[in-house]
Amino acid sequence: MASTHIFSAYDEDLKYLSRRISEMGGLAEQMVSDAVRALVNGDAGLAQKVISDDVIMDHAEREIGDKAIVTIARRQPVASDLREIMGSIRIAADLERVGDLGKNTAKRVIAVQSTGVPRKLARGLEHLSELALVQLKEVLDVYASRSADKAKSIRERDEEIDAMYTSLFRELLTYMMEDPRNITSCTHLLFCAKNIERIGDHATNIAETIYYMATGAQPEGERPKDDTANTVGAVTQ
Amino acid sequence: MASTHIFSAYDEDLKYLSRRISEMGGLAEQMVSDAVRALVNGDAGLAQKVISDDVIMDHAEREIGDKAIVTIARRQPVASDLREIMGSIRIAADLERVGDLGKNTAKRVIAVQSTGVPRKLARGLEHLSELALVQLKEVLDVYASRSADKAKSIRERDEEIDAMYTSLFRELLTYMMEDPRNITSCTHLLFCAKNIERIGDHATNIAETIYYMATGAQPEGERPKDDTANTVGAVTQ
Repeated sequence: MASTHIFSAYDEDLKYLSRRISEMGGLAEQMVSDAVRALVNGDAGLAQKVISDDVIMDHAEREIGDKAIVTIARRQPVASDLREIMGSIRIAADLERVGDLGKNTAKRVIAVQSTGVPRKLARGLEHLSELALVQLKEVLDVYASRSADKAKSIRERDEEIDAMYTSLFRELLTYMMEDPRNITSCTHLLFCAKNIERIGDHATNIAETIYYMATGAQPEGERPKDDTANTVGAVTQ
Repeated sequence: MASTHIFSAYDEDLKYLSRRISEMGGLAEQMVSDAVRALVNGDAGLAQKVISDDVIMDHAEREIGDKAIVTIARRQPVASDLREIMGSIRIAADLERVGDLGKNTAKRVIAVQSTGVPRKLARGLEHLSELALVQLKEVLDVYASRSADKAKSIRERDEEIDAMYTSLFRELLTYMMEDPRNITSCTHLLFCAKNIERIGDHATNIAETIYYMATGAQPEGERPKDDTANTVGAVTQ
């Protein structure tokens, strides 16, 4: 009787962590999508909402961390249960960073407002964020299923986002060169594009954590990478 | 006798974690300092060294994480011992990110090489990295002493770095507006400056983790922030 009680209380702890992470994931997606919409439409009110949402994310990450530590201390889990709890802490940290990147994008809405976002660039940013959001959504679904195989395949999807980011980077440079009045706003858009590209990295981190939770091992080999924006100078100059 | 043996083996585990974190900290400092030197002098060889060093950092973070989990599973620590181990994982993650930021800066050396870094900007970047490195060094010293009071005071030092970053950001925009040929390299320098500014954030994270390890609580109140670069557009246009 006592053991059943302990078992189910422990089960409740794990379910709590799982539920809180899914909630964080949902809010992270919303924040990123809102931030890009605020940017493209110059919507300062929506940007402010994203900035406020970040407080909820910070709070959630802390609560998950505290709960994880209390659970470890009380239940003394080993092997896969311990990995499950440690994984929760890592995933919560990645989601909190995604929220931060959404907030940072939202903060730049005011700086970009004076010139607005050129139509073509807006489309590029929207497309980049769609790719990142699909990846984030998929990784959250894989989290729900705890499938190591699916986690591994998501890890291979980050390339597309990196390639799209590099193309957007080049386009932004072109706008800046055409007209110096574009420079300030395009600089902020560059950081926004970088923020969105980094969301893909966090989704990949989460996929690696899920793989680790399911198998106890890190996925083998280097991450596929096609981010050549770091060295674009050699090409465009 | 058995209990003494268990105690000292456990003590060895904690010492191992502590030593590995100090090693990571030392390498992180070296990488950041080398990356900025490579950038300012256009030294592609040194940049390559920083990029290789990052593999060591990734490896170290993984080893610390694995050791931490094995230690928790074997020794079943509670309260402050558990916080110590959980804190190690968090600090290792922050140091790994610092290494990444060094690597990202080093990767941009080639893109900037064609135009070089204007003297005044080089001084600005060097000054910014000195501030960040002082903060990182101090926080690693505080880690060795585990002083909650000192950890709290470091957390208040990030403002200076943020203000310096904002001023560098404005200067870079000016260069870009003066001559479109500066745009590509200045864009990379903007990202380098942002990388260095973010090292300050990670030092602050580490200070918060040390505070938590020592007290079991998070430091109260918002972090002091003076990073107005996000909204610079409204001012310079």
